[in-house]
Amino acid sequence: MKIILDCDPGHDDAIALMLLGSSDAFDVPGVTTVAGNQTVEKTTANALNVLSYLGLPYKVYKGADRPLIRSSLICPEIHGETGLDGFVFPPHGRREEETDARAFIVDAIRRSGEKVTVVTTGPMTNLASALLFAPDIKDNIERIVLMGGSVGAGNVTPAAEFNVFCDPEAADICFKSGLPVYMIGLDVTRRVLVLPEIVERMEKIGGKAAVMFAALMRTFNENQKKVFGLDGGPLHDPVTVAYLLDERLLRFEHVHTEIDIQGGISYGRTNCDLPGYLKKEKNSFVATDINERLFFDIIGRAIASYR
Amino acid sequence: MKIILDCDPGHDDAIALMLLGSSDAFDVPGVTTVAGNQTVEKTTANALNVLSYLGLPYKVYKGADRPLIRSSLICPEIHGETGLDGFVFPPHGRREEETDARAFIVDAIRRSGEKVTVVTTGPMTNLASALLFAPDIKDNIERIVLMGGSVGAGNVTPAAEFNVFCDPEAADICFKSGLPVYMIGLDVTRRVLVLPEIVERMEKIGGKAAVMFAALMRTFNENQKKVFGLDGGPLHDPVTVAYLLDERLLRFEHVHTEIDIQGGISYGRTNCDLPGYLKKEKNSFVATDINERLFFDIIGRAIASYR
Amino acid sequence: MKIILDCDPGHDDAIALMLLGSSDAFDVPGVTTVAGNQTVEKTTANALNVLSYLGLPYKVYKGADRPLIRSSLICPEIHGETGLDGFVFPPHGRREEETDARAFIVDAIRRSGEKVTVVTTGPMTNLASALLFAPDIKDNIERIVLMGGSVGAGNVTPAAEFNVFCDPEAADICFKSGLPVYMIGLDVTRRVLVLPEIVERMEKIGGKAAVMFAALMRTFNENQKKVFGLDGGPLHDPVTVAYLLDERLLRFEHVHTEIDIQGGISYGRTNCDLPGYLKKEKNSFVATDINERLFFDIIGRAIASYR
Amino acid sequence: MKIILDCDPGHDDAIALMLLGSSDAFDVPGVTTVAGNQTVEKTTANALNVLSYLGLPYKVYKGADRPLIRSSLICPEIHGETGLDGFVFPPHGRREEETDARAFIVDAIRRSGEKVTVVTTGPMTNLASALLFAPDIKDNIERIVLMGGSVGAGNVTPAAEFNVFCDPEAADICFKSGLPVYMIGLDVTRRVLVLPEIVERMEKIGGKAAVMFAALMRTFNENQKKVFGLDGGPLHDPVTVAYLLDERLLRFEHVHTEIDIQGGISYGRTNCDLPGYLKKEKNSFVATDINERLFFDIIGRAIASYR
Repeated sequence: MKIILDCDPGHDDAIALMLLGSSDAFDVPGVTTVAGNQTVEKTTANALNVLSYLGLPYKVYKGADRPLIRSSLICPEIHGETGLDGFVFPPHGRREEETDARAFIVDAIRRSGEKVTVVTTGPMTNLASALLFAPDIKDNIERIVLMGGSVGAGNVTPAAEFNVFCDPEAADICFKSGLPVYMIGLDVTRRVLVLPEIVERMEKIGGKAAVMFAALMRTFNENQKKVFGLDGGPLHDPVTVAYLLDERLLRFEHVHTEIDIQGGISYGRTNCDLPGYLKKEKNSFVATDINERLFFDIIGRAIASYR
Repeated sequence: MKIILDCDPGHDDAIALMLLGSSDAFDVPGVTTVAGNQTVEKTTANALNVLSYLGLPYKVYKGADRPLIRSSLICPEIHGETGLDGFVFPPHGRREEETDARAFIVDAIRRSGEKVTVVTTGPMTNLASALLFAPDIKDNIERIVLMGGSVGAGNVTPAAEFNVFCDPEAADICFKSGLPVYMIGLDVTRRVLVLPEIVERMEKIGGKAAVMFAALMRTFNENQKKVFGLDGGPLHDPVTVAYLLDERLLRFEHVHTEIDIQGGISYGRTNCDLPGYLKKEKNSFVATDINERLFFDIIGRAIASYR
Repeated sequence: MKIILDCDPGHDDAIALMLLGSSDAFDVPGVTTVAGNQTVEKTTANALNVLSYLGLPYKVYKGADRPLIRSSLICPEIHGETGLDGFVFPPHGRREEETDARAFIVDAIRRSGEKVTVVTTGPMTNLASALLFAPDIKDNIERIVLMGGSVGAGNVTPAAEFNVFCDPEAADICFKSGLPVYMIGLDVTRRVLVLPEIVERMEKIGGKAAVMFAALMRTFNENQKKVFGLDGGPLHDPVTVAYLLDERLLRFEHVHTEIDIQGGISYGRTNCDLPGYLKKEKNSFVATDINERLFFDIIGRAIASYR
Repeated sequence: MKIILDCDPGHDDAIALMLLGSSDAFDVPGVTTVAGNQTVEKTTANALNVLSYLGLPYKVYKGADRPLIRSSLICPEIHGETGLDGFVFPPHGRREEETDARAFIVDAIRRSGEKVTVVTTGPMTNLASALLFAPDIKDNIERIVLMGGSVGAGNVTPAAEFNVFCDPEAADICFKSGLPVYMIGLDVTRRVLVLPEIVERMEKIGGKAAVMFAALMRTFNENQKKVFGLDGGPLHDPVTVAYLLDERLLRFEHVHTEIDIQGGISYGRTNCDLPGYLKKEKNSFVATDINERLFFDIIGRAIASYR
């Protein structure tokens, strides 16, 4: 399975990268970065740090430093000043490629002999830009699998989830693209909390991935505690890759989804029409159920693979 | 407790009226009607029918025939052509008062020796008009208790609940009024489903209220089945009066709520900021938990009181 | 002609009051006030001052202290701290009536033996509240004549004129009321500038109205100079009453007008569809041409009547 | 002067192309097309027809077939079924390039030894996509000169001008790009009407450009008559190139402009803050005055150059 992972590490993005590298089933032409949890300079440095530490050879392409239309937003409350506080990565000599993430996405998809799955775990700015610039790439995209949105309440406003709120117009473009869109939102990711016992369980597995996981998650949880009062933060982003590793993980419903791009109090809301009130075209598959036990088993197996 | 009930019967409003009449604890200067589930002519006729059938002496005042600003909306899919399909009420000679509901609300509140609780189980048009016209009545309102809104998803669009969607600007005016607003939304009312066994249980109690309840609920459920695929419809409106009969019924959280009045895809959403993301002034008490068993016990006791 | 003048004096409102009192043709059951150019306490005091100084017996009714829905806005830049800086009115013992402006509007219209013309020279809050509260008064309203709006650019944002911007939802309610709405906007009022030679001409007429006119307009012009760089401010509000004194003053076109109530950058814009692009129902008469010479002749005659 | 002309011919675009080809001062790496007055297939064919007929060697690159975010809109009422009704172009063998317009814009600007002026006479979709995809090109863009927008009223809704209304988000992206934006809107283009005497005057000049001009303008005027009741249509698009031929043509003011992207009744309005109400950063030069005589002299000279 050919995958481009577009991310903004970020603690949970880091675990998504770890999952990605755990399997031989994935062919990864590159990892792209975007401003989101932190500035694109920081999310790019973080991606390189994680990949280098884990010994993963994926090339990294730096992308958009701001959303398509709205003003910029980052999230140091949860991810700290570096965007990945809590673990000191050893020095390495790797750098991002010269090519921009958006150009890479277009070129890699055009050149690919098979259809490419694009996974986004940050704001969808890079992918939306690529789709606007080169609509022909749609013919060679298998599907879009995104962490973002919420059927119910949001996590940055009462209406909106962070990744979509950071660039609602980008999400709107992707959801209206005609491509199969698999939305993995808060409705399922909020159910996979990295409680202290999970951290301990993963740490015991041992190996470099276990060390990184435990260190990052402890800081993540401290911040989740401060901001949301949670004992264990929701491991949002890795659900995307975990699902690609084992499709039994999630149940989806095929529904119409419309992003709020009005700019008011509900800006960035993913209005997923599960009951079919609006009688509009179904443009998305929305995750409505998750097997929590399976999820952490997948995480555990991935960590073990790095021993 | 002095109560004005502003309603748009409607099957569940009818049960709210029945609850209201079941207790000596309530002093009810009048019942007011509004366009919502059906036109105001029909909801007024329905209120008179229910009150007459149950032998309740409350005066009825007809109110707004359309929302403050948006275009009109009714709901024959659930409540039928009459707004109260399923039970043939015996003839009676009662009529609504000459005074308009909005004028009655202002006058009754001004004249009251004690503070008045205003319960709304339909669009909030009448109350909002009264508050705009005569802001002084705020001084003599105890609180607003409304059925409407949703922390999570809606029931008429993915974002909005019917009563608020019918007149979002009216709800906005009430929520911003500075009065204590108790919002009883889908988050709790969806948990009290009139399943067939509930209908049977209530029917067995006997008496005229039981007969009406069973007949109305059977039609209500048939429609809920057709439209939403539910075996038992949520008994939305009576939760308001049931709560006033026994405050142990609900748990509320004191939060900031902002209505979406932008007119886009999220129009009418009640953005309840339970986690406090927006750091704005707390203007509402939002019901987040309900004791389902207690609710149906309250309903049962009320039905029994009419034997 | 029976007229209720709803105003927020304000320098140009003061001149509108002066015009109103200059003619025996008008039967004025009352003058109502609203927050706009200044707080409603100040605009009410100003109305009483002007009427007392000019010896006009109209009763004054204080109305809304804030808009229906949006947050409040006043305009001390143009009208000063008092709302009517530039002239010291002599002391007098008059006070506003006990009845609220909104209640007065409803009662006066209901009681009137003939249809009433409602002139608004401030935000349309009072009239909109009255229409929402008592829609029956529409049957006894001759027409609404308002100063507000703009076919072209605004005067408080690039899109919006001050009176409409202060309460766009109120204007929307009035424009959608089904009543004949005569909109006198910036397109014509910007063409009647009180240039220094006009001030001198009016001052020379003599009498108490001339003294007040000259003093108020000199301060008005100083502020218009500071804020807009104009040598003479546009005498917006009096165009309404001047038109009722002599209908030859203005040319109107019958068109569809829709107020922007979206809350964005164009909030409060009066979208007047003169070319008929939208093919929607004609709900307003929009002033598109003014006879400037006639306007100042009317002003001059009115001033002379107070000698 | 290096120029890329991005257009949607369209009668007035055709005249803009004619002007472009009339001068040796312009270095034109290519002409790009976009959906607007007609579908992109038709506007591309039209551009090729005009260039071929006039013997101009510019390469043509086909671009976006729809706006970035909003739904599509075309204008057959004015430009007919072909988008250029009224003149039968002789057959030719030319075709557009393989490269997409958006890719061409990025590549041509990056490769250019001097800064490029981008002129848009249609919706700004292509340029906005290029700017989102490759923000680095901003460093090599001299300025954006666009026909579009209006300080006053619109020409497709009361608020909006056609080119901006077709893709408001694209315009928003360009206006916020930080590049010098020269907006030539209806405020000046409405003042250059191709009245019958203008058509006659140009026809008398003779040569192939005169023949084409006269034929196209007669059909253009028939449609303008039908739709707007005008004797001569406004020659919108050529004002851009005419200005580049002789900068004395227009007067600009440096102001803040904000596009309405709210999606309501004012959608697509260019809110140009000439008076500085909003006190926001100046991001545009807005044409406020035009020398009509000079404009038609420029047109005449250009037509003569093709004899």
